[in-house]
Amino acid sequence: MDAGIEKECGALGGLFQLIMTDMKASYPAWEDFVTKGTKLQSQLRTTILVTGSFLDAFQKVADMATGTRGATKEIGSALTRMCMRHRSIESKLKVFTTALSESLLSPLEVKMEEWKKVANQLDKDHAKEYKKARADIKKKSSDTIKLQKKVKKAVKTSGKEVCDYRIYTQRSD
Amino acid sequence: MDAGIEKECGALGGLFQLIMTDMKASYPAWEDFVTKGTKLQSQLRTTILVTGSFLDAFQKVADMATGTRGATKEIGSALTRMCMRHRSIESKLKVFTTALSESLLSPLEVKMEEWKKVANQLDKDHAKEYKKARADIKKKSSDTIKLQKKVKKAVKTSGKEVCDYRIYTQRSD
Repeated sequence: MDAGIEKECGALGGLFQLIMTDMKASYPAWEDFVTKGTKLQSQLRTTILVTGSFLDAFQKVADMATGTRGATKEIGSALTRMCMRHRSIESKLKVFTTALSESLLSPLEVKMEEWKKVANQLDKDHAKEYKKARADIKKKSSDTIKLQKKVKKAVKTSGKEVCDYRIYTQRSD
Repeated sequence: MDAGIEKECGALGGLFQLIMTDMKASYPAWEDFVTKGTKLQSQLRTTILVTGSFLDAFQKVADMATGTRGATKEIGSALTRMCMRHRSIESKLKVFTTALSESLLSPLEVKMEEWKKVANQLDKDHAKEYKKARADIKKKSSDTIKLQKKVKKAVKTSGKEVCDYRIYTQRSD
């Protein structure tokens, strides 16, 4: 029974350590994710600027087509419409970039620091409590063994006494 | 009538010159468009690379969530699905970038050189033919004036002869 409890305690401690190791091993992946995300975000910002200047040039071509003589006016208005649709893509890209930074990367960076702290605290607390629990279990199991020995001895003694008493009563009969 | 033809010729020549000026003025806009487009294209290429490495990091996080113990397996598979959708955006971006370069910018560059050549040739041909046409018109109008004068003189002379003949016949009656 005691050996069973000790084994169970060891298994639970091992499981905790495994989960802890997994958590600590996950930091590099998260850090890599945040780094790559930050890179992507700055890249997207530049892309937005470049797309903006490309669309300005596009709009100039469209304006030129609208402004010149002849049937190019219709081509110009079609190009302007196309340009406006591209502008809506540009604005969606802006929203996405802002969301990537504000709703994913920044909170994740804050959380990561928090996770590290929490994990370290959990690790410390666990080590302390685990040690205490093991000591408790050891003490209780040695106490149990002592008590069992005492009981055995007492039973033996009392058994002998009973035996002596029987012999005594048989003799006195 | 002759002055009318000369005026019309001048107006048509002016219109041609106007269109030519418009065409020549459009080169900077087209060149700007191509330059900005090329920049956008190289920017998009870098963006594709950065997006790829971001998605790799994302996939690592998803794999980690799938691999660890507990209910994170489902989170992991959801993240993997999300990652795959982002990969499809990445591949669409690749197609767009290739199309931008191969179907818009490169043909446009080739066409621009062609346009310049054709416009210059048109300008030269027009100048030559315009000069010739003007000279023709001038010659023909001066010829017409000469002929008109001759006809007037002839009419005058023949009128006088008719008059003389009448006087002569009246006298002989």
